[in-house]
Amino acid sequence: MHSCRFLRVPLFQPNALCFFSQTPHLLSVKPISSIPVRNFSSQMGSSPSSSSSKLLFRQLFEKDSSTYTYLLADVSHPDKPALLIDPVDKTVDRDLNLVRELGLKLVYAMNTHVHADHVTGTGLIKNKFPGAKSVISRASGSKADVLIEPGDRISFGDLFLEVRATPGHTSGCVTYVTGDEPDQPYPRMAFTGDALLIRGCGRTDFQGGSSKQLYESVHSQIFTLPKDTLIYPAHDYKGFSVSTVGEEMTYNPRLTKDLEEFKKIMENLNLAYPKMMDIAVPANLVCGLQDPAC
Amino acid sequence: MHSCRFLRVPLFQPNALCFFSQTPHLLSVKPISSIPVRNFSSQMGSSPSSSSSKLLFRQLFEKDSSTYTYLLADVSHPDKPALLIDPVDKTVDRDLNLVRELGLKLVYAMNTHVHADHVTGTGLIKNKFPGAKSVISRASGSKADVLIEPGDRISFGDLFLEVRATPGHTSGCVTYVTGDEPDQPYPRMAFTGDALLIRGCGRTDFQGGSSKQLYESVHSQIFTLPKDTLIYPAHDYKGFSVSTVGEEMTYNPRLTKDLEEFKKIMENLNLAYPKMMDIAVPANLVCGLQDPAC
Repeated sequence: MHSCRFLRVPLFQPNALCFFSQTPHLLSVKPISSIPVRNFSSQMGSSPSSSSSKLLFRQLFEKDSSTYTYLLADVSHPDKPALLIDPVDKTVDRDLNLVRELGLKLVYAMNTHVHADHVTGTGLIKNKFPGAKSVISRASGSKADVLIEPGDRISFGDLFLEVRATPGHTSGCVTYVTGDEPDQPYPRMAFTGDALLIRGCGRTDFQGGSSKQLYESVHSQIFTLPKDTLIYPAHDYKGFSVSTVGEEMTYNPRLTKDLEEFKKIMENLNLAYPKMMDIAVPANLVCGLQDPAC
Repeated sequence: MHSCRFLRVPLFQPNALCFFSQTPHLLSVKPISSIPVRNFSSQMGSSPSSSSSKLLFRQLFEKDSSTYTYLLADVSHPDKPALLIDPVDKTVDRDLNLVRELGLKLVYAMNTHVHADHVTGTGLIKNKFPGAKSVISRASGSKADVLIEPGDRISFGDLFLEVRATPGHTSGCVTYVTGDEPDQPYPRMAFTGDALLIRGCGRTDFQGGSSKQLYESVHSQIFTLPKDTLIYPAHDYKGFSVSTVGEEMTYNPRLTKDLEEFKKIMENLNLAYPKMMDIAVPANLVCGLQDPAC
């Protein structure tokens, strides 16, 4: 395990000079001194699919825990470098088979947070695909190859994800957001984990959860994104696959309320203790495997 | 019930002069005399999301029958006309609520075929949203407001779907494909019903099913589409959400075989009788409701 070696580029700092990808063969040094201001549409109902000739994107579902796993790759790059967000142990073979069929090179197996409802697939993936590195936030307290911090960029080919801290469901939750540059997918895509769900949000009653912190995270880190940004959560229980920032700012039944009302809602959910919690959390602190080298 | 009033435009007829939308207030007459030849990428791994500033697209899932319902709308049109493909009775309220939240005007509630595993939502939708018309193929033998035939175009605003006959799972199965014109979504999107599933296909042992016919349908009507065409099936049982023509031509474990081998595979599936069949099929012949005016 070692800490993140990415050059930290604070978000919204227009005069940062360069960033580095961690993987040497994909090393990229790019001037980003002049980020053009995009005329982002604020239309809530705009198309929920991102336009990019480089991006391959797949949304994958694990039925028992209603978890979404996301596969992203830069298919314009000779290596087709790819990453998986929130893989589940049960569906690792499905996911890796798809990676192979599509001719991708998996470089990162990432988590948005330490899950309490399923065991992460990152450890299994590393065993089966030794080149891949596990990624999670330093604030999660978990072991991983790469411990990310807010403002980091995770590069795969010419594409990258920004890391935003969105604690509140757990103290180490992050949201991964595609970059705000002309050659990155448009609209932007936000992988929100359990911080923001479609018309909902993750619970805040364990794992360092805080309803106040979650409210502030979503409002400061997600609702400040362009309204057409696509929301891809870690779970959905009603069959929705995607939403937008604009939709959630208008229709989310919890996060459209003021902070005090939100706190009351979260205090009165009366949810059952997660049946997988005592298995999943200890396992997920070590990539889903009792393997100190995860 | 009345038959389809669309002007029939045979597929791939480059000198057809115009087409009409059925709904008067959305009437559109467009010259399509000069369809440019697109440089379609044959790259199998290209991005599985369609680029169109006009299209709003949502994939919705019904867990019990593992059915995908699709919502498409032209959000560039003042009315935001929309259609639903393969809605399920149980999730009609979810779907219509989303339609309302997004400010869409539902014009069509369509089926790819007479389903045997769930009851269609088209009848309920018409009750709750009187402006919407039910759509199914004439070959299905079902009642509906609009009985479509191969080569028809189903217009919603400036966007349209082509109808392709893909019998074999049932004798009335069709595949809806987004248009092959510069202002239509790219890559193209094919809503294949149960004719072609991701790494699979629908069974062929009832409802006029024929393995030979299904094989010929998929090879002549779907595998002839550009390889980057996105495949959106009516079901998935493994958590996949989308595939491409290129992927299925390479990795579909059934349809990559020759006809004789395919027929043997289909004869030896030994599948159970669908538990919903005796309820779903009679209901689906009348839009899911015992209502002769469906």
